[in-house]
Amino acid sequence: MTERSDESEAGSRPRARASARQLVPNFDKMHGLVPAVVQEYRTHEVLMVAFMNQEAWELTLSTGYAHYFSRSRNAIWKKGETSGHLQEIREVLIDCDDDSVLLLVNQVEGTACHTGNRSCFYRTVYPSAG
Amino acid sequence: MTERSDESEAGSRPRARASARQLVPNFDKMHGLVPAVVQEYRTHEVLMVAFMNQEAWELTLSTGYAHYFSRSRNAIWKKGETSGHLQEIREVLIDCDDDSVLLLVNQVEGTACHTGNRSCFYRTVYPSAG
Repeated sequence: MTERSDESEAGSRPRARASARQLVPNFDKMHGLVPAVVQEYRTHEVLMVAFMNQEAWELTLSTGYAHYFSRSRNAIWKKGETSGHLQEIREVLIDCDDDSVLLLVNQVEGTACHTGNRSCFYRTVYPSAG
Repeated sequence: MTERSDESEAGSRPRARASARQLVPNFDKMHGLVPAVVQEYRTHEVLMVAFMNQEAWELTLSTGYAHYFSRSRNAIWKKGETSGHLQEIREVLIDCDDDSVLLLVNQVEGTACHTGNRSCFYRTVYPSAG
């Protein structure tokens, strides 16, 4: 998140690309969860947003397939496990405040959304269609 | 979110592009907040993730500039108000479950992150640099 964005920019400079070794999300800010943004690695289309807990994070990195935490079912799920619409991890990034993550994936079969749309973001609010 | 992604795909088809008129996020799922993913409208680079409450959502649509809700400060903030790094809204989308939103913006001065980086996602966890 960039909640401090407008408070500390004086004198700031781009940081060097950090070593990846100790980069772990801070799960404490949101009761054990962080939002994960999922982007198709070729087109850069945003496919969906989901949440990860620490176990989902570790499973994602260790298996190479996206895992999330379902708030409604209170359980880990491997994306595509039943539908076949797996997400193969190509790149994982973490934000400046360690409280959100970005996955670049190969979306197997091209469809991320349970509605059958490629992306969950298929409805435009603005500009208005009406 | 797509927590139901793997439960209801049988027989699903892509929906028609919905009318934008009644599209409002469901703020109840996360205690009054929804995550907002911010993408640069030309490059499709993901710049940041923040949270919106209903007031931030309405201010964003009515003013054409991104507003968020700061959890740490418990207050609305207009992105770039002090830094000048405003986000001009080009497009707003809402996801299948009405619980996350995607903003395509013109990032004024090109820098979204308080570190001085263009994007808050400037650190790669995987593939490892080490």
